[in-house]
Amino acid sequence: MLLQGELTGNIVTLGRQATEELHNTSFYGRPRGDGLELSLAESAYLIYMEKIAVIFDGKELDFKRFFLKASALANNFELFYIVYKDMRERGYYIQPSVTGFRIYPRGGHPGKTPSEFFMLVTSERIPFLLSDLNRHLDTIDNLKKRLVLAIVDEESDITYYEIRKIIPKGSYELELGTSLSVATLLEDRCMVWDPEVSGILKQSGFFGKLMDEGHLQLSLVESCYLLNNGILKIENRDREKLDFAGFSGLASRIESDFLIKYRVYEELRNRGLVPKTGFKFGTHFRVYKKLETGANVSHSDYLVHAIDKNHVFSLQQLSRAVRLANSVRKEMIYAAVNTKIYFFIIGRMRL
Amino acid sequence: MLLQGELTGNIVTLGRQATEELHNTSFYGRPRGDGLELSLAESAYLIYMEKIAVIFDGKELDFKRFFLKASALANNFELFYIVYKDMRERGYYIQPSVTGFRIYPRGGHPGKTPSEFFMLVTSERIPFLLSDLNRHLDTIDNLKKRLVLAIVDEESDITYYEIRKIIPKGSYELELGTSLSVATLLEDRCMVWDPEVSGILKQSGFFGKLMDEGHLQLSLVESCYLLNNGILKIENRDREKLDFAGFSGLASRIESDFLIKYRVYEELRNRGLVPKTGFKFGTHFRVYKKLETGANVSHSDYLVHAIDKNHVFSLQQLSRAVRLANSVRKEMIYAAVNTKIYFFIIGRMRL
Repeated sequence: MLLQGELTGNIVTLGRQATEELHNTSFYGRPRGDGLELSLAESAYLIYMEKIAVIFDGKELDFKRFFLKASALANNFELFYIVYKDMRERGYYIQPSVTGFRIYPRGGHPGKTPSEFFMLVTSERIPFLLSDLNRHLDTIDNLKKRLVLAIVDEESDITYYEIRKIIPKGSYELELGTSLSVATLLEDRCMVWDPEVSGILKQSGFFGKLMDEGHLQLSLVESCYLLNNGILKIENRDREKLDFAGFSGLASRIESDFLIKYRVYEELRNRGLVPKTGFKFGTHFRVYKKLETGANVSHSDYLVHAIDKNHVFSLQQLSRAVRLANSVRKEMIYAAVNTKIYFFIIGRMRL
Repeated sequence: MLLQGELTGNIVTLGRQATEELHNTSFYGRPRGDGLELSLAESAYLIYMEKIAVIFDGKELDFKRFFLKASALANNFELFYIVYKDMRERGYYIQPSVTGFRIYPRGGHPGKTPSEFFMLVTSERIPFLLSDLNRHLDTIDNLKKRLVLAIVDEESDITYYEIRKIIPKGSYELELGTSLSVATLLEDRCMVWDPEVSGILKQSGFFGKLMDEGHLQLSLVESCYLLNNGILKIENRDREKLDFAGFSGLASRIESDFLIKYRVYEELRNRGLVPKTGFKFGTHFRVYKKLETGANVSHSDYLVHAIDKNHVFSLQQLSRAVRLANSVRKEMIYAAVNTKIYFFIIGRMRL
């Protein structure tokens, strides 16, 4: 004989026996007064497991009818159900929360241990707002929990990502003189013509790329950084000197996201990291934590992409970025530019 | 004593001796009448190599002055120069062409062998139009040449991609009965409730994903394909039947590019290939050339992304897509949807 529950609103309510059989041993639902309350996902799973029967309007709903009913009652019910089932079957105890689910650590359960993860559940098709992510990260930081994003793709496969803030740091110290030379802004890069200065910038600063032994090509962000730090002067092809405002204005016309990219470049350099272009990886920068003067640039540690505070993630693109970073043994970091810059790292999570 | 040339317009003209010393042995420039004509990139390179001196307005231009002059005369001169120099230093003979450069095969040279590649030169920042790509591919097909895209990134690194049309083919034959069952369109996927039909679709057709032993989840494109081929009927949650027009209309509201995605899905299926979602790779599909009934889905061969005829490539995204595909041993294919669908494959080229 199955345990019987009744669907009212979004909740299935069962009697005292259910609390004993379902909650006290397996941590389904939440005891309320004399009985047990189950969420829609829990109820669907327990119908599927043939543990409970659910009555609505005096009639029992079979799995299909309950599923259709639930998916009419709750937005994205299918997603929540798929994720709920997957987590249970991986052996996790899991409870509803404001973000979606709270996940208990392996070996832990409600009443014994605090939950470890807060999980957001979404579909690859739903745009993901940076502002929402921030809100969740703030809440979760205060609670000392970790944030997991469960993304259900169109074929119902789930990918779990952990997202956390970090403060990246490196060991590089910039020690270059001022006014070393004058570089020229060409179409969309700068050229240092002086062979000696070219060598110094390249060897001690890891700036630019030597076009040949005597000439160094600098990217726009590199040029702007060197200009802003008084290390180089920059002129246009008509030999007119450019100041920071003039240069960054021109650069913003060449790449529309120049300013946020520059802010992140500067922040990384100030933190002792060496950013170089991440073009081949489809991100703004690849970043080195540790480089020794004169050494060959070897394996970079991070891929960093600058985004502004109104950024909306396409989860398809996020997925590709993380996948690519991991496939080349790097970590994927987004740098969100507001009045301050904060960094967060996103990685696949193996549960 | 250096060979002397004179800059007029975009051309440097040298005398008969230059034809002998620069063209007949090293295949620089083009003989015209009694003399030799050099392009701006060739001239800059030969100044750098200390083979020629170039006079303009009665005065000799040194490398820096010539470079600045050339970059004022020709759009993106810096890019052409960087690529020209790189190709020469890799040991290729290279001549200007309408697309940018013609490249001779290794061991070949002008007058001995036809050129092998036509090369387009561009910067990562310049949007790349599908319509331009098509025009070039058509020209180059007629000439029996191969197309190479040289992309210069912001730090002046060059990545070479080869682009060619292909007609993908697979060995899968669909053999399923009609009107097997009725599936329900939920939020953004369909559910097949019948356990037997779920099994058949999954095992013999590689459709969908089993949510559990009895229920199969289908993506929107899969559902639409099965509906359009009479294999499944589909109804909404209110049990109203949907036809192709109704279903694809709803699906287009869920994903805006549904129709081009569907056209490509259908074309791939009709060609004996099995497409599954490519979400984890950031593309529309991952595609299997060969699958045996009942076998486990293993390594897929292609990543395929559907684009419409007005598509504009971001070269940063293209670079990421190809890099990711190659890092997981797959080939990256774009499927351009017009009245017909044509496919082209883009891969890194090792020169």
